[in-house]
Amino acid sequence: MRIGIIGAGQLGRMLALAGYPLGMRFMFLDRTEQTPAAPLGDSVVGDFDDPESLAELVAQSDILTFEFENVSAPALDTLPDHPPLWPPASALYYAQDRLHEKTLFAELDIATAPSQPVEDLEGLRSAVANLGLPAVLKTRRLGYDGKGQMVLRANADVERAWESLGGMELLLEKLIPFEFEVSLVGVRSTRGETAFYPLTRNHHEGGILRHSVAPYENAELASHARGALDRIMQRLTYVGVLTVEFFVYEGRLLANEMAPRVHNSGHWTIEGAVTSQFENHLRAIAGLPLGNTAVTGHSAMVNFIGRMPDRAAVLSLPNCHLHDYGKSARPGRKLGHATAVCTSAQARDDALKRLISLDLR
Amino acid sequence: MRIGIIGAGQLGRMLALAGYPLGMRFMFLDRTEQTPAAPLGDSVVGDFDDPESLAELVAQSDILTFEFENVSAPALDTLPDHPPLWPPASALYYAQDRLHEKTLFAELDIATAPSQPVEDLEGLRSAVANLGLPAVLKTRRLGYDGKGQMVLRANADVERAWESLGGMELLLEKLIPFEFEVSLVGVRSTRGETAFYPLTRNHHEGGILRHSVAPYENAELASHARGALDRIMQRLTYVGVLTVEFFVYEGRLLANEMAPRVHNSGHWTIEGAVTSQFENHLRAIAGLPLGNTAVTGHSAMVNFIGRMPDRAAVLSLPNCHLHDYGKSARPGRKLGHATAVCTSAQARDDALKRLISLDLR
Repeated sequence: MRIGIIGAGQLGRMLALAGYPLGMRFMFLDRTEQTPAAPLGDSVVGDFDDPESLAELVAQSDILTFEFENVSAPALDTLPDHPPLWPPASALYYAQDRLHEKTLFAELDIATAPSQPVEDLEGLRSAVANLGLPAVLKTRRLGYDGKGQMVLRANADVERAWESLGGMELLLEKLIPFEFEVSLVGVRSTRGETAFYPLTRNHHEGGILRHSVAPYENAELASHARGALDRIMQRLTYVGVLTVEFFVYEGRLLANEMAPRVHNSGHWTIEGAVTSQFENHLRAIAGLPLGNTAVTGHSAMVNFIGRMPDRAAVLSLPNCHLHDYGKSARPGRKLGHATAVCTSAQARDDALKRLISLDLR
Repeated sequence: MRIGIIGAGQLGRMLALAGYPLGMRFMFLDRTEQTPAAPLGDSVVGDFDDPESLAELVAQSDILTFEFENVSAPALDTLPDHPPLWPPASALYYAQDRLHEKTLFAELDIATAPSQPVEDLEGLRSAVANLGLPAVLKTRRLGYDGKGQMVLRANADVERAWESLGGMELLLEKLIPFEFEVSLVGVRSTRGETAFYPLTRNHHEGGILRHSVAPYENAELASHARGALDRIMQRLTYVGVLTVEFFVYEGRLLANEMAPRVHNSGHWTIEGAVTSQFENHLRAIAGLPLGNTAVTGHSAMVNFIGRMPDRAAVLSLPNCHLHDYGKSARPGRKLGHATAVCTSAQARDDALKRLISLDLR
């Protein structure tokens, strides 16, 4: 069985590494030849919405999937005759636009930060008046890793933000002084089977995920989060891994955003769960039984951003696993990660500190 | 860092799957294009002792290794200028010839079944007289999976065995009515660091490994086995994974044979140990710190030989991991394996039974 993946970054690479043992093969579509996933399969080099490149991918794939949500759903729809595409294009409709996403969350009774779409400066002023400050002005589309966002703290910020982001489709969101962020990774298969990992607690800096620990143990929040994911998956007749990030504020969850794909906050599942998010995504889209999502210990995952730490230093830490994506270094670029799997939360927190100190050295 | 691997079978495939997360890349040399490892790296197609093919592999590799012991050491030696080759060629000298191997074991005080080299029919008769029957006549070279062996139970078998195997370099070995077989997988790095997995108990049928369970818990035998491996590794200034198979007979170990490579009886370490034998082989030859060899549970590994079981049936078993090597089916061919990792020996034995029943269905 050949899986066609739109995108050949580290997510595609880790999907392939998880898929070979299942007897799968891989073909990737990406804009350049030198990609993290390229050594692990065949590649089509072309734009993500280029009909010829997509047609080449489609011709050689039994199932299509994608590793990032900014793939062009309309381009996929124009393909005359394509194999199953999972997650479904409807998930892209919601995940690609913060307004659609908020609307879906509201329909499914999933709490979010109050927000209002913004079409012009007048609308922005009115939204500020309604929601109050501080607030965050966000582009509705194509934001990631903190890009396309500006925080408004005083009325003087309103015009400055409009100058910077005006002209794009925007959303103003009340800035929630949340305590921390958690995410939930779930999966639904073509058979309708679902499974959920435990909650992961995430720490971002500069809009980029720096580290995660799992399981974050809070039965009530976990139950609410699973309910939310389950409702989204049922509504969309979803297939594959789905991730939702939540703010934890005053003891409850506010959904921040969803990602219709394997997710950075689920990388710890490679060693920290019986079945990884990557393997379960592939099992789900291939119609295979889902694997056990139980944890094998207490995990800490640290992203390596901009530069890799000394490899030997990471590998000398007990119970620590390195993941080098094979990328060239560049500021702000996710180059790899490491996961420590420990027998207690205390040992996990110690391992996290050691990993962070290696990263900073 | 690019690793050149002589051989592109399932062992090369699993080495590559373990090596990408370490930031390594792979090039394989094998006789055919359609190999289990080919999708996971670049390939040179040629004979293992073809100087041009070897030179091409060498030119593009930072470190050389091999996935099976019948690679030609002399061919490697003739290469004018090659990167480090690990395990060392001396290990091939011993592992490729049962007489050399027995001699090494004797020198290092490692007990084996009594044996005697055989050069002609007269010598065979004399060896039978010395060792008694039953005995096993074995080719000194190129035997694997039970091939190149004949059991002699009565004097009438002597000439029949000679007709079948005469002309090759032979060894007669007393047939030991051993209770079962265990193996030990150990590893030594270029830094001189060593690590050992626990003993694995193995079950063969028709000379082929059918299933293994680990850990086989017997502190005294484990200590003896580690001592034996350690002495071999020190003597050979060995680098990489080394496996020794032992018969368990009357409460003690008799070394059967050594394999200077990752080994089928260590496949359970992919999920059943903190660091797999594949990752530790790569860490060892690349001069990286060795990974933790502690077990994560009680593991059972079943080989799929000649045909693959129903994939969904295997994946529906809890805590079970499938490894499909991507090979076409052929009688007697190892096509894949599955490993169950359980929280108790009892649960592991139950999982083993279920896996065996799936294989037979």
